[in-house]
Amino acid sequence: MKIINKADRPSLRRSVDQGTVEQRKSVQSIIQEVKENGDEAVRRFTEQFDGVLLESPRVTKEEFDEAYDSMDGEFITILEEAAANIRSFHEKQLPTSWFDTSSDGTMLGQKITPIDAAGVYVPGGTAAYPSSVFMNIIPAQVAGVERIVMVTPPGEDGKVPAGVLVSARILGVSDVFKIGGAQAVAALAYGTESISPVDKITGPGNVYVALAKREVFGDVDIDMIAGPSEIAVLADDTARPREIASDLLSQAEHDARSSSVLVTTSEHLAEQVQEEVESQLQQLPRERIARQSVEDYGMILLCDTWQEAIDAINEIAPEHLEVICEGPFQSLAKIKHAGAIFLGPYSSEPVGDYFAGPNHVLPTNGTARFSSPLNVDDFLKKSSVISYSGEALQQNVDKIARFARLEGLEGHARAVESRKERWT
Amino acid sequence: MKIINKADRPSLRRSVDQGTVEQRKSVQSIIQEVKENGDEAVRRFTEQFDGVLLESPRVTKEEFDEAYDSMDGEFITILEEAAANIRSFHEKQLPTSWFDTSSDGTMLGQKITPIDAAGVYVPGGTAAYPSSVFMNIIPAQVAGVERIVMVTPPGEDGKVPAGVLVSARILGVSDVFKIGGAQAVAALAYGTESISPVDKITGPGNVYVALAKREVFGDVDIDMIAGPSEIAVLADDTARPREIASDLLSQAEHDARSSSVLVTTSEHLAEQVQEEVESQLQQLPRERIARQSVEDYGMILLCDTWQEAIDAINEIAPEHLEVICEGPFQSLAKIKHAGAIFLGPYSSEPVGDYFAGPNHVLPTNGTARFSSPLNVDDFLKKSSVISYSGEALQQNVDKIARFARLEGLEGHARAVESRKERWT
Repeated sequence: MKIINKADRPSLRRSVDQGTVEQRKSVQSIIQEVKENGDEAVRRFTEQFDGVLLESPRVTKEEFDEAYDSMDGEFITILEEAAANIRSFHEKQLPTSWFDTSSDGTMLGQKITPIDAAGVYVPGGTAAYPSSVFMNIIPAQVAGVERIVMVTPPGEDGKVPAGVLVSARILGVSDVFKIGGAQAVAALAYGTESISPVDKITGPGNVYVALAKREVFGDVDIDMIAGPSEIAVLADDTARPREIASDLLSQAEHDARSSSVLVTTSEHLAEQVQEEVESQLQQLPRERIARQSVEDYGMILLCDTWQEAIDAINEIAPEHLEVICEGPFQSLAKIKHAGAIFLGPYSSEPVGDYFAGPNHVLPTNGTARFSSPLNVDDFLKKSSVISYSGEALQQNVDKIARFARLEGLEGHARAVESRKERWT
Repeated sequence: MKIINKADRPSLRRSVDQGTVEQRKSVQSIIQEVKENGDEAVRRFTEQFDGVLLESPRVTKEEFDEAYDSMDGEFITILEEAAANIRSFHEKQLPTSWFDTSSDGTMLGQKITPIDAAGVYVPGGTAAYPSSVFMNIIPAQVAGVERIVMVTPPGEDGKVPAGVLVSARILGVSDVFKIGGAQAVAALAYGTESISPVDKITGPGNVYVALAKREVFGDVDIDMIAGPSEIAVLADDTARPREIASDLLSQAEHDARSSSVLVTTSEHLAEQVQEEVESQLQQLPRERIARQSVEDYGMILLCDTWQEAIDAINEIAPEHLEVICEGPFQSLAKIKHAGAIFLGPYSSEPVGDYFAGPNHVLPTNGTARFSSPLNVDDFLKKSSVISYSGEALQQNVDKIARFARLEGLEGHARAVESRKERWT
């Protein structure tokens, strides 16, 4: 891992994968086909892309049972404990409707309601993570979403990994469909004979899934388009090199395009972490991926002052940030942009991936500048409530009418003025 | 306006305008040009599309002064009062950061921070509304956004309507640029020599603006893609036909594609509103637009029961909803989907457009199913905060490591396990 001085820091922002022209066209035509031919089109694309012809894509009770029976009971207990922690954290995010009253009798407020239906995309293959099931579905459940549909691509054997099904059962979700790719996104957005349309689609996926989500955005809501995972560690002399190196590699092993950065004021730490990274890399099962990631998107950034280090963090706006230093809470106040912030030496990043409670679906690639971890608010929406009193209208009707006329909207002025006969 | 029985109700959902293939290509190439050539490209497109060659697009202090001097002082007072009302409502939306502590010393929480910079698009021409300036900028200011940039296309005389500039000055916003269309969206997203990039772009615009926002989404955040405005009125016998008709027409006059719907259980009201709409239409300056809108997207929906009427409203998920009936607050509880809900006879829709305080940027075309009025949260983002204690890690490290290994991520397991030497 290279050590770089602040002055020479290259930009770490990776351009968002917008897909090729061919990929976009292909996604558009898949969506169109699913809109027109429903289940039949989905079945056809599943055969074409996942290599398996499924009579019915819905996961049966028998499949759930089989998955459950195949899994170690002790591990199921760990899953349940993780789910409980995640639920407990997200319950604290619940906002409430509110009202404000004026002495003239006017009431203004904001009513909060859940969306009716959410669709969750869970990736297949090696990235089929039980934790993704929890992190996407629990916030929707806490928000009060009545119908939750999960989709995930089948393997060539027509099956879904047991961990994914067990996680869904732990949450009480039974609407699970073995479909993936752009066809799954289209089915969720527009519905088919066997899947009713949903109002919002969340969850990560490959470039086809990302492009499809972008395409249906507006007809339904989507979460952010996720990029490769990232970690930045902000550390001083009090940090232990071995721990820092292992945390950096925990993100590097995800994807060759993942990014891991140490920002420090300590030259000594920089050098020791550099050595540790190399020695730990050699022992890692996913060495090839992690090494590529470290070479292309890893660095140790050496800063002159702590403030300079914090500024660098705010520019990077990392998905995960660890702050391992003397008095990490003092630095927290100055950190503006990060998806999740891990304070102190015991808050190793994987603690948040599985267990602590906060969501692991986080803004990547600098989008923490403007977006948030997946959370309960993502499954709620607001309605403004206006109950104007006669007294308030009488006092303000002429101002409102005048404002409307300045904007050239006579009908707006007449609408409020139509109430004048009530008090004359 | 046609009266329709519930059973025969057609869908009111208009398909979202995705633009033609040519329009999308054109928008993509404009964005690319602005990315590559900055101000020079923006200047060229402004000449091409707005018919005016501007040395510098930035609105000068002299232009602000001229606009301010040209405007009636009494009206400026009305504008200031409206701005104060809007600010007061939005201040009540401000969420706070929070923390939760466990007895083992662990702290979990959520930190709220504003985005650094917001860009607001204000449409030009007849749709250049001072109220849009307020409704887009005030929530950003309340959220604490430090830099706010406003863009609006110039007229052929190279000027911006006085009302728009005065509104900006009332809010203390001086970064105003006379640029519009896809080139303005690109300049805000990627920056030029004279405009620094922003993190989020809000505000309505024509199809090119909407397509450009969709295109840059991901690199920056955007608000929803706005469609033509809509009103639904839910009313019983207690409503006055004249008032209902004028409220329906206040939305019909916006756009030939606007939608206005009365949902009622009263046949008597239905017939009287039908007559009133026709007679008021004949007196309306924007009769042509309003009549087209009423014919294509207007209807009076007659329901058998009040619950059926409420169900119809929830299916429509209107941008604006008026509830004019005996005890409107009882019905509020049952309404799930609406952008803004106006209760009682005095809450005429234009009250909310200009003056009451809630935002008039609202979800259209059924998107109230999953989205909210523009609000302070749109300019804030969350960071999860995790401060795990040594005790908590010691207790859970083996579970976390096991979870990680189940997902095939050995590096994750080793990261948490690297702390074990701290307590052995």
